[in-house]
Amino acid sequence: MSDCIFCNIIAGELPCHEVYRDEQLLCFMDIAPAGRGHCLIVPLDHHADIFGLPQEQLLAVQRFAARLAPLLKHYCAADGIGVHQLNGAAAGQTVFHYHLHLIPAYQGQSLQLHGRDAGAADELAATAAALRGLLLEEGC
Amino acid sequence: MSDCIFCNIIAGELPCHEVYRDEQLLCFMDIAPAGRGHCLIVPLDHHADIFGLPQEQLLAVQRFAARLAPLLKHYCAADGIGVHQLNGAAAGQTVFHYHLHLIPAYQGQSLQLHGRDAGAADELAATAAALRGLLLEEGC
Repeated sequence: MSDCIFCNIIAGELPCHEVYRDEQLLCFMDIAPAGRGHCLIVPLDHHADIFGLPQEQLLAVQRFAARLAPLLKHYCAADGIGVHQLNGAAAGQTVFHYHLHLIPAYQGQSLQLHGRDAGAADELAATAAALRGLLLEEGC
Repeated sequence: MSDCIFCNIIAGELPCHEVYRDEQLLCFMDIAPAGRGHCLIVPLDHHADIFGLPQEQLLAVQRFAARLAPLLKHYCAADGIGVHQLNGAAAGQTVFHYHLHLIPAYQGQSLQLHGRDAGAADELAATAAALRGLLLEEGC
């Protein structure tokens, strides 16, 4: 969809700090992270939310999330990982293309689901590169 | 695990407002809901978080979540559904048995992941009964 920012990223018409891509999904750094290491996982096909997402794509996203979560926690030296998926503006969804948030959590920092400020591009790029490396090492 | 509240619920040693149960998972109403209709989905086996959960159980939980979400939204006349899964105390996890939150969202109400007060037992029971009925109708 031409007016969907995630479809534009998937099509390569907008840039992203890519972590992983296969034939079903794309993972990249959230440009306005709620916390250091905040990643998004999106199916390549456009579906607004969980209500219309084909099961195969849902499971592909979840499978990859479970792979990435320990690597992300390790790389970020995080104390935990929040996995969040929002459906509908009332639930906090801001981009209406199904996506899963992986948000590293750090002891003593308050929880939030959306950042207010753009992340530093060099830090986002470095994190994406490190995660690509860890996924490669793992043979993912 | 004898000191795990969800294992106790699964074993029938503690009560719950059950929505659904099969050979892999149990779904029941959160006793201290963050919003009306707040459900939890837990695998029957004890695993603290996403880092140790076998993939088969992860996917069973996610598959059921995708089935329940539209029924929950419909029954609650909600404007959206948040799907949240917390790993580690720093991420807000309070019961260390993997679980998925389905939290209906209502326009104009602020987002939160944990309720502070116990829900009204009759409302929890009525919601659980209604969802059981909808799942049966759907042939789930």
